[in-house]
Amino acid sequence: MSISCANRLGERSRPEWAEPIACELEMVERTLESVVCSDISTAFDISMHLLSAGGKRIRPALVVLSGIVGGECDPERLTCLAAAAELVHMASLVHDDVIDETSQRRGVVTAAESYGNKISVLGGDYLLAKAMGLLAAYGTPDILRSLSSNAVRMTESEILQASAEGDLAAWEANYWRIIRDKTAGFMAACCECGALLAGAEPQVRDRLCEYGVQLGLAFQITDDVLDISGNCELTGKETGTDLMHGKFTLPVLLAVRADESGELREILASGKLTRSQAEDVAARITRSGVLANARLAALDRSEEAIKQIRDLPRSRYTDALIALARFVISREA
Amino acid sequence: MSISCANRLGERSRPEWAEPIACELEMVERTLESVVCSDISTAFDISMHLLSAGGKRIRPALVVLSGIVGGECDPERLTCLAAAAELVHMASLVHDDVIDETSQRRGVVTAAESYGNKISVLGGDYLLAKAMGLLAAYGTPDILRSLSSNAVRMTESEILQASAEGDLAAWEANYWRIIRDKTAGFMAACCECGALLAGAEPQVRDRLCEYGVQLGLAFQITDDVLDISGNCELTGKETGTDLMHGKFTLPVLLAVRADESGELREILASGKLTRSQAEDVAARITRSGVLANARLAALDRSEEAIKQIRDLPRSRYTDALIALARFVISREA
Repeated sequence: MSISCANRLGERSRPEWAEPIACELEMVERTLESVVCSDISTAFDISMHLLSAGGKRIRPALVVLSGIVGGECDPERLTCLAAAAELVHMASLVHDDVIDETSQRRGVVTAAESYGNKISVLGGDYLLAKAMGLLAAYGTPDILRSLSSNAVRMTESEILQASAEGDLAAWEANYWRIIRDKTAGFMAACCECGALLAGAEPQVRDRLCEYGVQLGLAFQITDDVLDISGNCELTGKETGTDLMHGKFTLPVLLAVRADESGELREILASGKLTRSQAEDVAARITRSGVLANARLAALDRSEEAIKQIRDLPRSRYTDALIALARFVISREA
Repeated sequence: MSISCANRLGERSRPEWAEPIACELEMVERTLESVVCSDISTAFDISMHLLSAGGKRIRPALVVLSGIVGGECDPERLTCLAAAAELVHMASLVHDDVIDETSQRRGVVTAAESYGNKISVLGGDYLLAKAMGLLAAYGTPDILRSLSSNAVRMTESEILQASAEGDLAAWEANYWRIIRDKTAGFMAACCECGALLAGAEPQVRDRLCEYGVQLGLAFQITDDVLDISGNCELTGKETGTDLMHGKFTLPVLLAVRADESGELREILASGKLTRSQAEDVAARITRSGVLANARLAALDRSEEAIKQIRDLPRSRYTDALIALARFVISREA
């Protein structure tokens, strides 16, 4: 890649897995910044609000690394598709933050909080339209098919999750499906997208896809543990936010199963919790010792991810995928 | 087209413009019904709620008619693209109905009202993902480029409209841009989509596109008039709903300009109106006589639409486009 590369990502302490693709990730940032330009100031403002909130850019990294591992790619196409993946991710976050009239606003400043629900929803749609523009310009029919079928499963699982809010039995029945389709499926689609662009052999593409699934599961379980025991100064989210929203994730489900008194089940039966109830429940889950089991489940998924790519020809890019699989379970934010 | 055709559309009194494409529109309905199937019951329910609300299916008709007028099309591809257009339209309606926490719920039962904001937003995303799946399967790169660049302008104008709510000066400055990009641009994109699939000559495609723009303007101005003077039993919306939401459309802008006392401008300066204020203002606008001018503006656009296709070889399909251009300004709902 012949592009001279301003070292902006380096300035915010680049993680090990991002080192070999620093230039590509910088191109992704530039694409994101240029693509959201609009003469409608609110459209531009809300996009920049979302962009400048940062993020780990794991999804674009998966597109880029899978593309390079999978074969030869045109760097512009690869980074534009990577940017499209991040736009879809950002749109899903902003739509996920939409506040029901029935629920109160709490916690961190989301776009919905700054701009109101309506403009946030339309801002998410704007990002989706921009992503579609990049896909139309740089994608291939099979990339479009892969991403669109994933988008269907992703929105279905988001709907399943939203319908399950506050319903412990629904979470017990659907937790794995929700995190597989919501988080892991999209990470797998990012890997597939890179591999398809590179024209990778089907077995290489399958390895990369399954790596993405396992990575996504490890990522999401870790996210769910951080909600219970994370340092809110690092995560930027108050402890127990998922609990407050009635999202009963793996640590909660493990704690309910371990609690022979049945008290925890009773507390959760009331549905969504107040801030102080959520903090109490989070402390109780932490004391119960089940977080170690949840972390172990994340570690298993991370090791399974690494196993998927073990037989691919080793390079600094496969090493980066391995480092990423370790990063997602060790992160504190 | 060799498909035997259940005459379901016929049962609900088919308008003249829909006659020659009754079979294709029936295929669109069937595609819509089958495509929204999901094992996630809430995803299916909200989709069926939106589908069964009906609608005039003008956008799919534009895809189909432009495809047939533009040349030879595979009927399955054409009707699947037409269904994708309707899904995008439905998604935009449900996202448009999302309620800001700052505003009260009023008026008709929207998806947001039945399912809450969050599930409505995700339901809209689900429809968009399904539309993307149809486009990935049946579209061409130039169709995708046309629709995605239109989607950007459409969401920008939705954001512009939402930011302008209650701001008379913003509406005075932006009314034409809002209705061009929000409504007319999408109708033009539907025409372009059919023409592109048919491989129509560029000058035929341009005529059909410009027909779509003019039709869309005529449609939207008529919608805006119906908000002030429509029979709410026919429109299904209470009179003055746009006024209540701070949408100051052409009849309002004409009335403000005609009102030498400046009273109307003063009333609107307070931003959004209560139900009874909105009814008063609507009655005042009706009394002022400006609705005739607004209807004249819609008639001009309708005639301009017809002019665009006058030189195309005449057929029952061009006749249907002409009938549609007359229908959109004469409708009462």
